[in-house]
Amino acid sequence: MSSSKKVVELFYDVVSPYTWLAFEVLCRYKNVWNIDLKFKPAYLGGVMHGSGNRPPGLVPNKFHYMSTDLTRLSDYFAVPLSSPSNPFEAMFEKGSLNAMRFVTAVAEKEGDVQVERVSRELWKRIWSTDQDITQPASLTEAGLKAGLSASQVEEFLTLAKSQPIKDKLKSVTEEALKHKAFGFPCIVCHVNGKAEVFFGSDRFELMAHCIGEKWLGPQPDKPTAKM
Amino acid sequence: MSSSKKVVELFYDVVSPYTWLAFEVLCRYKNVWNIDLKFKPAYLGGVMHGSGNRPPGLVPNKFHYMSTDLTRLSDYFAVPLSSPSNPFEAMFEKGSLNAMRFVTAVAEKEGDVQVERVSRELWKRIWSTDQDITQPASLTEAGLKAGLSASQVEEFLTLAKSQPIKDKLKSVTEEALKHKAFGFPCIVCHVNGKAEVFFGSDRFELMAHCIGEKWLGPQPDKPTAKM
Repeated sequence: MSSSKKVVELFYDVVSPYTWLAFEVLCRYKNVWNIDLKFKPAYLGGVMHGSGNRPPGLVPNKFHYMSTDLTRLSDYFAVPLSSPSNPFEAMFEKGSLNAMRFVTAVAEKEGDVQVERVSRELWKRIWSTDQDITQPASLTEAGLKAGLSASQVEEFLTLAKSQPIKDKLKSVTEEALKHKAFGFPCIVCHVNGKAEVFFGSDRFELMAHCIGEKWLGPQPDKPTAKM
Repeated sequence: MSSSKKVVELFYDVVSPYTWLAFEVLCRYKNVWNIDLKFKPAYLGGVMHGSGNRPPGLVPNKFHYMSTDLTRLSDYFAVPLSSPSNPFEAMFEKGSLNAMRFVTAVAEKEGDVQVERVSRELWKRIWSTDQDITQPASLTEAGLKAGLSASQVEEFLTLAKSQPIKDKLKSVTEEALKHKAFGFPCIVCHVNGKAEVFFGSDRFELMAHCIGEKWLGPQPDKPTAKM
């Protein structure tokens, strides 16, 4: 059974709201589609820099559209997205380097279940409840809410500052760049020995077609909402 | 019947391959959904300039992704997209100003049927068979293939150089900018007195949800291909 599963890798950073949508969709589909979902926590800043891309929100009309688009998608995808009060500060000044090093530490020491939970708690903080994701106290709170023990959180906070974890985050980011990523989500589907790369949270219907699965909308347990 | 139809405006330029996908989807759905589809030929160069946006293809990784993405979408949408041999020359050096003035002349003098046919013939030239869309002889060929008579083509070629047609193209482009467009396709759905703006060829599922219609994939006559 497992040998026939298609491997789907999600390169992500919790600083990206569109990536949260893709993350939730893939988490919902991992038991609906015959896929082996691999979480690849990476650093969006490194991908933007390495690819020479610019954040889309810097074009005023695009920023305005993204706000409307995210509100509509939040409702349709049933993901409680809400912009931080100062998105530029949250995304570009404060950033996600500490948070993604913390997630990388969790990924190195824990299984997928904890990585999924910790990532979701971090997304909720930055993209739902307008809270910090840079300070140790904030990462601690996210870790505890995700079900980690206080001693585990302490261990991961220390690990997050270590060279091996910093190097790991860099190497996963470089892996995304090797797939020619220019932003997140970057979803890599391994199909018949070929890596099929999809960018964004708006290619699931096409992706399903490519991996031989059925797209039932962003809420596969509620297909009637769509059809 | 017609009073209950929702007005859907498609702002477009034949220089944009993603817009061709949206154009064909909306043409297929105009008799499936309860919508009144309005063609709004405009000038993408003016929208990019007016919004301060940059063409996405200028980032190398994004250009690489778009090529793969367009190939996959061409197959899935059943639109015979094929990149011109020199896309930069076709899109940015030669451009579409003459072509869109010609389409605007057709739109001013003919009905939707001819505008649809002429636009499709121009898209085929630039985005399927790698042919010029700047020279009068090329516009003539597109017009004849679309079913216009030789004298009509002659009339529209002359009109395309007139100030009123130049002004009309400008005003429709400005109308798109008033909707805060930053690229094409820009699809404006008038729902309950509100203009809901959608960018791209990847928001149809969401758009259908917003206008109270059903998304049956890019080929509504072949829904089983999707479901």
